[in-house]
Amino acid sequence: MADQRKPTTAICAYTSDAIYVRDKSLVDELIGEITFTQMMFFQIMGRMPSPAEVKIVDAVLVTLMEHGITPSAIATRLTLMSAPESLQGAVAAGLLGVGGQFLGTMQGAAELIAEMMAAEDGVPAAAERIARRHRASKTALPGFGHNLHRPDDPRTPKILAVATAAGVQGKHIAALLALGEAVDRVYERHITINATGAIAAVLSEIGIPVEVMRGFAVITRAAGLVGHVKEELENPAARGIWDAATHAVEYSGNALKNHA
Amino acid sequence: MADQRKPTTAICAYTSDAIYVRDKSLVDELIGEITFTQMMFFQIMGRMPSPAEVKIVDAVLVTLMEHGITPSAIATRLTLMSAPESLQGAVAAGLLGVGGQFLGTMQGAAELIAEMMAAEDGVPAAAERIARRHRASKTALPGFGHNLHRPDDPRTPKILAVATAAGVQGKHIAALLALGEAVDRVYERHITINATGAIAAVLSEIGIPVEVMRGFAVITRAAGLVGHVKEELENPAARGIWDAATHAVEYSGNALKNHA
Amino acid sequence: MADQRKPTTAICAYTSDAIYVRDKSLVDELIGEITFTQMMFFQIMGRMPSPAEVKIVDAVLVTLMEHGITPSAIATRLTLMSAPESLQGAVAAGLLGVGGQFLGTMQGAAELIAEMMAAEDGVPAAAERIARRHRASKTALPGFGHNLHRPDDPRTPKILAVATAAGVQGKHIAALLALGEAVDRVYERHITINATGAIAAVLSEIGIPVEVMRGFAVITRAAGLVGHVKEELENPAARGIWDAATHAVEYSGNALKNHA
Amino acid sequence: MADQRKPTTAICAYTSDAIYVRDKSLVDELIGEITFTQMMFFQIMGRMPSPAEVKIVDAVLVTLMEHGITPSAIATRLTLMSAPESLQGAVAAGLLGVGGQFLGTMQGAAELIAEMMAAEDGVPAAAERIARRHRASKTALPGFGHNLHRPDDPRTPKILAVATAAGVQGKHIAALLALGEAVDRVYERHITINATGAIAAVLSEIGIPVEVMRGFAVITRAAGLVGHVKEELENPAARGIWDAATHAVEYSGNALKNHA
Repeated sequence: MADQRKPTTAICAYTSDAIYVRDKSLVDELIGEITFTQMMFFQIMGRMPSPAEVKIVDAVLVTLMEHGITPSAIATRLTLMSAPESLQGAVAAGLLGVGGQFLGTMQGAAELIAEMMAAEDGVPAAAERIARRHRASKTALPGFGHNLHRPDDPRTPKILAVATAAGVQGKHIAALLALGEAVDRVYERHITINATGAIAAVLSEIGIPVEVMRGFAVITRAAGLVGHVKEELENPAARGIWDAATHAVEYSGNALKNHA
Repeated sequence: MADQRKPTTAICAYTSDAIYVRDKSLVDELIGEITFTQMMFFQIMGRMPSPAEVKIVDAVLVTLMEHGITPSAIATRLTLMSAPESLQGAVAAGLLGVGGQFLGTMQGAAELIAEMMAAEDGVPAAAERIARRHRASKTALPGFGHNLHRPDDPRTPKILAVATAAGVQGKHIAALLALGEAVDRVYERHITINATGAIAAVLSEIGIPVEVMRGFAVITRAAGLVGHVKEELENPAARGIWDAATHAVEYSGNALKNHA
Repeated sequence: MADQRKPTTAICAYTSDAIYVRDKSLVDELIGEITFTQMMFFQIMGRMPSPAEVKIVDAVLVTLMEHGITPSAIATRLTLMSAPESLQGAVAAGLLGVGGQFLGTMQGAAELIAEMMAAEDGVPAAAERIARRHRASKTALPGFGHNLHRPDDPRTPKILAVATAAGVQGKHIAALLALGEAVDRVYERHITINATGAIAAVLSEIGIPVEVMRGFAVITRAAGLVGHVKEELENPAARGIWDAATHAVEYSGNALKNHA
Repeated sequence: MADQRKPTTAICAYTSDAIYVRDKSLVDELIGEITFTQMMFFQIMGRMPSPAEVKIVDAVLVTLMEHGITPSAIATRLTLMSAPESLQGAVAAGLLGVGGQFLGTMQGAAELIAEMMAAEDGVPAAAERIARRHRASKTALPGFGHNLHRPDDPRTPKILAVATAAGVQGKHIAALLALGEAVDRVYERHITINATGAIAAVLSEIGIPVEVMRGFAVITRAAGLVGHVKEELENPAARGIWDAATHAVEYSGNALKNHA
């Protein structure tokens, strides 16, 4: 591999008396000068966000931080009970569930939005095509539907309103709404655009690449799970959750029948 | 376990058309209304932060987000190369290193600060005692020393200055500084108060419990690692890191000597 | 760091046409020639196990592989449901719970056994001292007690019997049993020696260092969790577990009272 | 969800004095009676393996346990250095890399084998088709090629020989070999069948479902990583690896140019 270029990073450099992130001095230009949301955008995207971008990222992070006794929160609480020596392990266990099925659907939704915007025959035709394709193949439509929030996910209009008020161009949002209309028509019933669909649209509006969108959910859910860690330490629920889970799953074998 | 109370949570509740976090409506009162930093504090501490608290938490999060090709960043990048299907797995691998040895030292530092503030014979005597105890037992002093930033960690004075400017009472900071003086005297050389020491003091000033402080590092390092994920996807370094690591570790067995 | 020795490893070396583990040819001497249990012992301890050691390690691994809908199994199943793209993430989430509170107690138990064997005043006196110390400080006695298996953990005598039949010297086992007697006497009631206590003793008999004992639980629980993954894929229980957990935890806030 | 069936499990049940795994008494029929490999197969597949199946699973597990300073081993060692309080976290960090790119390729290889065996026009035609399809689309052929072992992966013939000696029917192995011939012909150069390709074939021979094959790598790599944990505790390499990684990645920003 003699001809291989040395790998490079543009994120961080340091000396004995200074640290630079994206070429800005951490001590002189960042600590105490900018917020977490600005710093996070700067770290990931390599440029400082505009006020509108901050507004949208904050709305996304606030939306996804918490949703009760989710699979992630359960994993974190049970792991903390079992291994109290490692807060980071408990949070990591919960974050491993920020995957394709729930929060990770924003990635699939963003891909659909990108597909519509790139379609030569225009957004409405593409929306119709996508809706028909998913209905025919009976595959889940990422960004659509919710098992708890019916008929409509209450977060969706608020997220879109925040982005609109912040002054985004709105093409991705319009494409998502066009898909929503096509879905209702093609499926012959109303299926809500859920929060991850809305988030896919507003993050697309500000140029967040599809491949890292899930990272925004990971970051803010980390904060949500630290909240569950603190409550679990003060007011433990994990043993009750364990008991309930144990009783929820019935043994289908024969051993206990033979056990006098 | 018939007499067991049902476990409870005060964090989140939802209905089909509303989500409440800490009794506030997510849609009406939080999304678009508050920043990530406010929401994170609210989620974890159960009360809205004051502007001073926001300022301090932002400074802490900005400080700890990024420090180059750290063990965490290496774990995240190598895991992403090996399992590109799971961004959350790559970030979780990195977060598992936010432990006792580096970032987690803020917990130990906060415990020392608490010990000094609770000492009946006053902070200076307790500082002297702590310094002597650690020197005698040759155990690492959490919050002190840094392998890269010598003689002084440049982040420390900035973090403390942000907190002071925000108007905190300053007793925890004063205790930390007293410990710093005692350490220099007892060890007969200057050992810097590092960033985790300073963070332990300023988070103690605003009432963050010792047991969840490490969580602040986990949250912001998650953002840092998403930045490394994005760069790794665009400009991969993992194979170069792997090569370098392989060559850095010499085989001490005999097999290759026999291998013609 | 010019004077630093280059780090070394004695585990593995390879060339383009051969792989050596602990100086044995993987292809010529290991694959097809030895069992997993032999290989695992060889990998970790750097020497081939005796037949007696294989017998004991097998008994330990068989004992700890599975125990129903445990916190680990719950974390794995919920993570798989949420992120089906990553089997390894689901298993890792479960393994993060192999910690200090349950399976990890074998480490604490092994330390107590070592303390008794090193005591100048002999095992019985040390056993009495340990029992009194834990009773006085009201700290949990690692390796003792079980929330499900009362009055006695049925695995304990079998594990000890396997080791005895394999011909171990038995000093660590004797120390554990002495501690069991002291505990019953000091606590004035019978507290069972549990499986992790027995495992601590038999792994100590064959020279497994205390610091890696927990690793044996991690390894075999990985297999247990793969079993749960397979069942979850074929006959999903995660959503039922999630429902049960949600209902098990009551919201103690006020939001829903106000929600008409 | 009133009409939902209660979820069930056939894996484990217990009473206060007994534990049953797959309807067998853990204490009376499993501990001390069977090996880890038998137990693991029993746990996952729900039936005791034949001696031939044990032989094959052992060969697979022995093959995949260890391969030097891999991305997984690096992640485990660095995480242990950073968070020594959690052996399970260090191993979990390494296991998160048992993904699609390296070890996880056995899943893709098994799917290709299944595709050939189901092809109406026979294995040779299907092999040709698969080779052409991958060459045309320039997608990696799972189970083929190796960055270190060239021209041939030395593990492959041994794994296949073990399975053949154990008396498997051999249809999946034959399909894999047919694909190997087609690949050499279509690509006009020799590309080795690697260990994960061979493992996909032999695990398919004994009926291991494609979706859990990766689990076998996770299990045995857990053992490999515990070996790295033990060596790291006794003879640390992590700091040297970290140093090497840091030096391997060049900063491409401008900050240090300005830093006098």
